[in-house]
Amino acid sequence: MAADSEDSPRQARLFVETPLQEAAIVELDPDRAHYLRHVLRLGNGDAVTLFNGADGEWRATIEAAGKRGGRLSVSTQIRTQESEPDLWLVFAPIKRARIDFIAEKATELGVAALVPVFTRYTAMTRVNVERLRANAIEAAEQTERLSVPEVREPVTLEKLLQDWPGERRLLMADESGAGQPIAVSLGGLDAAAKRQPWAVLIGPEGGFHRDELDLLRNLDFVTAVGLGPRILRADTAALAALSCWQALVGDWERPTPRLALDYKRRDAKER
Amino acid sequence: MAADSEDSPRQARLFVETPLQEAAIVELDPDRAHYLRHVLRLGNGDAVTLFNGADGEWRATIEAAGKRGGRLSVSTQIRTQESEPDLWLVFAPIKRARIDFIAEKATELGVAALVPVFTRYTAMTRVNVERLRANAIEAAEQTERLSVPEVREPVTLEKLLQDWPGERRLLMADESGAGQPIAVSLGGLDAAAKRQPWAVLIGPEGGFHRDELDLLRNLDFVTAVGLGPRILRADTAALAALSCWQALVGDWERPTPRLALDYKRRDAKER
Repeated sequence: MAADSEDSPRQARLFVETPLQEAAIVELDPDRAHYLRHVLRLGNGDAVTLFNGADGEWRATIEAAGKRGGRLSVSTQIRTQESEPDLWLVFAPIKRARIDFIAEKATELGVAALVPVFTRYTAMTRVNVERLRANAIEAAEQTERLSVPEVREPVTLEKLLQDWPGERRLLMADESGAGQPIAVSLGGLDAAAKRQPWAVLIGPEGGFHRDELDLLRNLDFVTAVGLGPRILRADTAALAALSCWQALVGDWERPTPRLALDYKRRDAKER
Repeated sequence: MAADSEDSPRQARLFVETPLQEAAIVELDPDRAHYLRHVLRLGNGDAVTLFNGADGEWRATIEAAGKRGGRLSVSTQIRTQESEPDLWLVFAPIKRARIDFIAEKATELGVAALVPVFTRYTAMTRVNVERLRANAIEAAEQTERLSVPEVREPVTLEKLLQDWPGERRLLMADESGAGQPIAVSLGGLDAAAKRQPWAVLIGPEGGFHRDELDLLRNLDFVTAVGLGPRILRADTAALAALSCWQALVGDWERPTPRLALDYKRRDAKER
């Protein structure tokens, strides 16, 4: 399902934080230059594509890549920026491999922001935001996304809810059995509700405290939903809720335009 | 979201392949006895629960656990067996960490069978079925499932389709852009179609070959669906399709009965 196939080697894609336009010069820090040289095994004169979350995707050529950094020159635009659903994933941090996994998969599933939240039963007390961010960038680069989710600093559940932006709705994975089934709840939304910004909230492995559940259920922007009769780990619950939201509310009514194109190219080559 | 919380340490659960009834004796092989002693740190007289995919879940006591194996005595039933949706996951094998992940997550998401399939662009040529099976058992044990998915021997796509059981429908994740959006397709099924056995088919990282796509689309038991405008890795596509199927066709209209019970217990304790 991913971008690369045997007969079309993976295109080197880089996320950069500078404006992209014809003839722009993009400077790379030593880390990114190292990635180009030693992971992607590219050097001066080689082609890459660049995206920055705002200006679409552009072809560029490596002009220099060494120990002290690199320089790329931008040539032509190959994709225009597309609008994406405004969906956050708010999640209680979990241990290392599973939190990496959440960052990677949530990026593929199109979230706009990752928001770590501390709840009463959250076992973790620290979050490596830089590491989460690196995982999100890598997932966006490798799966042809044109943007990278914002990774927020962690916040307590109380503070998050106090500062909650009024127009954003919160879909809460409620393992207590009190919520409606997710497909019933999301399938019943009217067009106006579907156009609002949303967030998915996944609690910690230990579940929410009763006081937290009471607090959440009484907020008018919260919709509590169930994810079926089997117990899901926190990372599975996050992916499942994001997938159902994208399928029923988000932009999954749209096809995958780039891959459709790759197929046409490959088929043409084979004939 | 998972079974354990800070104030209720995880119950040791074991999948066994022997009948479970009052006063039954269950023999453990050296591997499982080692797991009890050195991973769960349990010894003679300690309590565990057992399930076998047919007889529900039972309490048992460790009578012996040593280097040459172990013995458990079964006492009372604590859950009766529940019926589960008849959903297979048919997937092209991918590299080690991601295939482990597929086995774990598909088990949590309630699949009845895992079927590795070799396609034209599948990079892997071997599948460690025993390892997949171990991952599925561990996921079932840790997330309170009462059964373990069957893990089939790998098969070629041609052979799989030749021998396909006529009444089972095949939901194919079609990244070429030709399928209907998954929520439209599954949401439009009638009650009879929802009651049929189903399978989800996920192709390899390189996509299906054009001939494979043509073959699949012409079979009357195949429904091709799209999973949105972003490219998903094969493991993400598998999870997303299984989640949508469970939400729209499977048993996610049911709540999570055991966790609801745990909440009641914990709340009662805190008062």
